[in-house]
Amino acid sequence: MKTQTLADLGEDKLVRLITAKLSTDGSIIAGPGDDCAVVVAPKAGEQLLLKTDTIVEGVHFTADTPARLVGRKAMARVLSDFAAMAATPKHALVTLIAPPETPVKRVLGLYEGMTQLADEHEVRIVGGETSRGSQLSLTVSMTGTALKKKWISRSGAKAEDLIFVTGTLGGSIRGKHLKFQPLLAEAHWLVKHARVTAMMDLSDGLAKDLPRLADQSGVGFEIEPARIPLTRGCTLEQALTDGEDYELLLTLHPQTPLSLPDEFHRAFAHTRLHLIGKILADPKRRNLGQGGWDHFKA
Amino acid sequence: MKTQTLADLGEDKLVRLITAKLSTDGSIIAGPGDDCAVVVAPKAGEQLLLKTDTIVEGVHFTADTPARLVGRKAMARVLSDFAAMAATPKHALVTLIAPPETPVKRVLGLYEGMTQLADEHEVRIVGGETSRGSQLSLTVSMTGTALKKKWISRSGAKAEDLIFVTGTLGGSIRGKHLKFQPLLAEAHWLVKHARVTAMMDLSDGLAKDLPRLADQSGVGFEIEPARIPLTRGCTLEQALTDGEDYELLLTLHPQTPLSLPDEFHRAFAHTRLHLIGKILADPKRRNLGQGGWDHFKA
Repeated sequence: MKTQTLADLGEDKLVRLITAKLSTDGSIIAGPGDDCAVVVAPKAGEQLLLKTDTIVEGVHFTADTPARLVGRKAMARVLSDFAAMAATPKHALVTLIAPPETPVKRVLGLYEGMTQLADEHEVRIVGGETSRGSQLSLTVSMTGTALKKKWISRSGAKAEDLIFVTGTLGGSIRGKHLKFQPLLAEAHWLVKHARVTAMMDLSDGLAKDLPRLADQSGVGFEIEPARIPLTRGCTLEQALTDGEDYELLLTLHPQTPLSLPDEFHRAFAHTRLHLIGKILADPKRRNLGQGGWDHFKA
Repeated sequence: MKTQTLADLGEDKLVRLITAKLSTDGSIIAGPGDDCAVVVAPKAGEQLLLKTDTIVEGVHFTADTPARLVGRKAMARVLSDFAAMAATPKHALVTLIAPPETPVKRVLGLYEGMTQLADEHEVRIVGGETSRGSQLSLTVSMTGTALKKKWISRSGAKAEDLIFVTGTLGGSIRGKHLKFQPLLAEAHWLVKHARVTAMMDLSDGLAKDLPRLADQSGVGFEIEPARIPLTRGCTLEQALTDGEDYELLLTLHPQTPLSLPDEFHRAFAHTRLHLIGKILADPKRRNLGQGGWDHFKA
């Protein structure tokens, strides 16, 4: 039997198939079907956070990657950015570009993967857009909220702050890049239990991402390479430059109690918090070489 | 001299070039540079509106289309959706997928086109994402606000309501699809001066879009073809199915004064409001055939 494609089904029927399966809740005043989605605004005292992220076939996944994992990854990457701000993600819009010959089943798999992970974090897909194109891509745009002054920027690191990462780094291509958990609970725990001065998620590798945090904060840094937690079987070079770790990179006030990593591990048995270095006042002093993943140069 | 490409420049420098030229205002608490953008939340009594839209090279524009007009179109399409809800657009996120061999100059042109139109409507680009890919596409995700119960849905049309369109229909491919003005002022005027029961923007042609409005409202319709305002040189068929008109399609309470189109034209000398038919109670009674632009079947 011939596989049904997007060209066979048409845009309107595709949209109906997709939207019929979306989760809903009381925060959605008008979902798909109108020109815009309408949702309840953040509560008094909260600010609105916005993020968009895209994954492209042949760049972030392959034609062979199971559709549910592709969808999951698209959603997880954006959720990871909300974790990095210690914020609460709320509503998502999804843009699908796909060749007309794409099987309908594959597209439904993408949405299943997205919806399942979104549901786990009480995030709702409230709208989106579809277009044909020669290469499949999936763009997730998301809103979230955080109390004023309670979200964590990349720009707050100060001299003598301690630098930490969660989990292990390197080797994500072996599977973690498709299956990582956005560290929302971990980020909220850290903000509650420690003085987090800056935070970001590691998407392009420590060697590229730590300088970005340092740039935003106007500081330098000193990493002890031996302290960097390597994924089993990975070299230091891989840990620094492979990218797609989706771990949290954060700086904590110098008076952070030494017991914090143990407390963190008691709260989150599946992962650990590692001290890897400290922030220096001089923005020119940086002991990691350049590297990491560049989307256009790679 | 060799043209500088995205591959020559690299992602970080590209992002710096782009973000340095973005407009800013007091509503932006954290712009590009953090994991998420942070903006002020809607005011008390307002709801949050969300929309995303994408344009793809070879589908919505060609390799020869001037970059500024491509960027302008990407922004204008989303602004048009906020007009359709009689809402106020606020903040945008932009996702660019582009081949590494794309000239940097072309990408800067895209952002100039987007920023210029956004500025005209006091909309700020607060973040985005770039990735390489084989085909250029530009996705704009936008937030906006509207007072509770003051935005206009597609679902409010009732039997006997009158159906109107603004401007003229058909032939957009000759240039309008790149240069149309999002009808925000017109939409707000209509809501202020008449009882608008349902509204949408015409993106896929009246023959496809009116049935969508009717579906959402659970009604039928009767159009007088002779009343449909044709763009000069266009046939009725073209007016119904060309698509990309970006005019407003709206229904008004049956007691709308006959003078409204004249008042509208006095307020907006460049365009007109045309009565084209009326809403019927029976959702099965629809006198327009199917047609219009389908992204996957076309």
